[in-house]
Amino acid sequence: MNRNWLKWVVFFVCLAGVFLLGLALALIVARKGETKLAPPVSLNIPENETDPAVWGKVFPREYGRFRMTEDTTGPTKYGGPSPFSWLERDTLLVFLWAGYPFSVEYNEDRGHAWTLVDVEKTARRDPARGGKPQSGVCLTCKSADVPGMMQEMGLEKFYSARLEEVLPKAKHPVACSDCHDPKSMELRITRPALKEALVAMGKDTSRLTRQEMRSLVCAQCHSEYFFPRETKYLTFPWKYGTSPEAMFKFYEEIGFSDWVHPVSGTPLIKVQHPDYEIFLSGPHAQAGLACADCHMPYIAEGGVKFTDHYVQSPLKNISNACKPCHEGSEDEIRARVESIQDKNNELLHRAEVALSDAHQAIASAKASGATDDQLKEARTLLREAQMYWDYVFSANSMGFHSPQEAARVLAAAIDLARQSQLAALSAQITAKGGK
Amino acid sequence: MNRNWLKWVVFFVCLAGVFLLGLALALIVARKGETKLAPPVSLNIPENETDPAVWGKVFPREYGRFRMTEDTTGPTKYGGPSPFSWLERDTLLVFLWAGYPFSVEYNEDRGHAWTLVDVEKTARRDPARGGKPQSGVCLTCKSADVPGMMQEMGLEKFYSARLEEVLPKAKHPVACSDCHDPKSMELRITRPALKEALVAMGKDTSRLTRQEMRSLVCAQCHSEYFFPRETKYLTFPWKYGTSPEAMFKFYEEIGFSDWVHPVSGTPLIKVQHPDYEIFLSGPHAQAGLACADCHMPYIAEGGVKFTDHYVQSPLKNISNACKPCHEGSEDEIRARVESIQDKNNELLHRAEVALSDAHQAIASAKASGATDDQLKEARTLLREAQMYWDYVFSANSMGFHSPQEAARVLAAAIDLARQSQLAALSAQITAKGGK
Repeated sequence: MNRNWLKWVVFFVCLAGVFLLGLALALIVARKGETKLAPPVSLNIPENETDPAVWGKVFPREYGRFRMTEDTTGPTKYGGPSPFSWLERDTLLVFLWAGYPFSVEYNEDRGHAWTLVDVEKTARRDPARGGKPQSGVCLTCKSADVPGMMQEMGLEKFYSARLEEVLPKAKHPVACSDCHDPKSMELRITRPALKEALVAMGKDTSRLTRQEMRSLVCAQCHSEYFFPRETKYLTFPWKYGTSPEAMFKFYEEIGFSDWVHPVSGTPLIKVQHPDYEIFLSGPHAQAGLACADCHMPYIAEGGVKFTDHYVQSPLKNISNACKPCHEGSEDEIRARVESIQDKNNELLHRAEVALSDAHQAIASAKASGATDDQLKEARTLLREAQMYWDYVFSANSMGFHSPQEAARVLAAAIDLARQSQLAALSAQITAKGGK
Repeated sequence: MNRNWLKWVVFFVCLAGVFLLGLALALIVARKGETKLAPPVSLNIPENETDPAVWGKVFPREYGRFRMTEDTTGPTKYGGPSPFSWLERDTLLVFLWAGYPFSVEYNEDRGHAWTLVDVEKTARRDPARGGKPQSGVCLTCKSADVPGMMQEMGLEKFYSARLEEVLPKAKHPVACSDCHDPKSMELRITRPALKEALVAMGKDTSRLTRQEMRSLVCAQCHSEYFFPRETKYLTFPWKYGTSPEAMFKFYEEIGFSDWVHPVSGTPLIKVQHPDYEIFLSGPHAQAGLACADCHMPYIAEGGVKFTDHYVQSPLKNISNACKPCHEGSEDEIRARVESIQDKNNELLHRAEVALSDAHQAIASAKASGATDDQLKEARTLLREAQMYWDYVFSANSMGFHSPQEAARVLAAAIDLARQSQLAALSAQITAKGGK
């Protein structure tokens, strides 16, 4: 009897042990508790469907979050979804872009839901407010209906159309079909300029990894581009690479400029949001991250885990965007990011003062009788300087995507701008008959 | 019988389960397998013992690794333990430091074991090789015997002595007693300048955490310092903070300069290894790391885990220094670090060219008859510019300790140097009677 009792004790102790083992395993597994749903097998989304609401019937969670991009409240320190005026924040911008539509209106961009409204309503295309008619190519990144138009009209015709011609055909802003195949939901590139640029760089676009695609779908639009005055054929200046130096080399090779500055007579290049390019040189890209990792982190709703299609500044979403990898409270993380942005902002301003001084020095030399030939060096330096500054200025993130590289580029811009000012001063001396 | 058989099966299954649980726990614990030994209770190290070999009898592992700092082979791309000549690598340095002993010899520093030999043998104190006699204060960070001398001679007397006077009393290089209390082995500050600077900044030096101390023992020597020409009282210029702007403000306030540049007549400040200061603004400090975390990471020998006293470049020790936190192969990590250093090197050179141009522009304006008064602005700008450049140049790590901050400071240096050049050119025009 006594021995039997002992047996039972041993037995229950063993059971308790196994129970604890199970418990431990269960706890570990619970950390991965959110289910990631596979896409429904039959999607029933028509091949050419561009209306996000139709896609939203199959993907209500993603669609619900996508609609959140309509929110325009709560700016971050240097960005976010509120369309505040950069020209009012920083009046030097009006001078540096004088003679170009961006000096008429330059607002912080709102979310994806607003792309179509904002390209239609911008003062930049309104002669009554100082703008001028824009080209159809400007619609390329503003509507999910563009790939259909490109197919229907032919690429060259679409690019060279006037904006008024193509705007009425656009029904939806940037939306699901811009990045997803409606049958497989796989990521896809729908804008030719990116594909052409990758091919030109020797990339095999059929062998892109999913992680590469999680940045490249963004790079379709969040990249620097230009178009020749005549054909308006949208092109990425990546022939020699994605650094500002590589882009400048390309622009010099084809002798491209967007406009001539009215004060200094310098032919200038307006850079436009090289977000992808500058990201590539930064620490997050080096750690193997893609745009979507921070701008579209996973989110859980009702135990279901999915990619957040509320694309926004990670500063508005620190808990999901940063904290999976970074320690510290939200306030500490924000402070770290803003300290990087503050330094970048300081250098941007330093560069703007130098650029402005150079424009004025050239104007003053010209007024003293310096010839275009005597001013050539000053203008060449200023052209390069302003492009480098604008590469950093016009990229979103206020330098955060690549803090050291942004500072390096701005240091080069400052140096070249001051050298331009020196060259202008020398030209002035020469013009006045000095040594 | 049949039922008994079943009981045994259940019993052994339970046993197996518990065994696996134990196994799992054991595996987890094994990851922490190296024992960290507590220091022996009775150390028997005399209170004023400075000879590392005596300490080494109690701490043979630490001493063995400390002796490894004798190795001078295998430079890194921009540093390491080989005493190559920076002046030969970069001849602009000779010009920028002209008239100051650093233009005579400026070698990459060797390990801690060499401090005493190197301060004795440097060409900077040898008139036959272009140097001049140095002050005793230069010994402060070169020998473990210094605190004893300070006590014996009195602080003011030690600082104001000639180097030849105090050198014979120094028997050992930087060693154990500089950072450790011989009784408790606790970290301690033995050099007054750091303590005085912390107090001046309002820090309570009795409440420093162990993690702070793991940087501050290094900051005793790896910091910017100066001494007034008369008293030679060693002081850290931290009254307003540790940024270059804060230091410059302090130097301006007391009207301090190390020497006057013979070409431009500019009173200049020679910055010296503000490693601790620039580290404070960088991402590793923000992540809560101390100098020792990367320069003295834990090491395991024979199953015993201890702090590696082979203080060296983490690039020579990537596996222990970087890989506990960072992914990627050693080659990948080295490439990432070197890409940061390459950019910093590029900006250093850009700044050096700008500084050199400014010195020459001032000289040329002077030759054209510009007065000191007319050249004041140019010299003031150049003085600030060269201090900022030297803040980054003279800090070890080639910008790695704080990549964006280093670039920001260099951008400011470039801007100010070019402004100085412009001011000199304007002064020249004025001197020649131009407008």
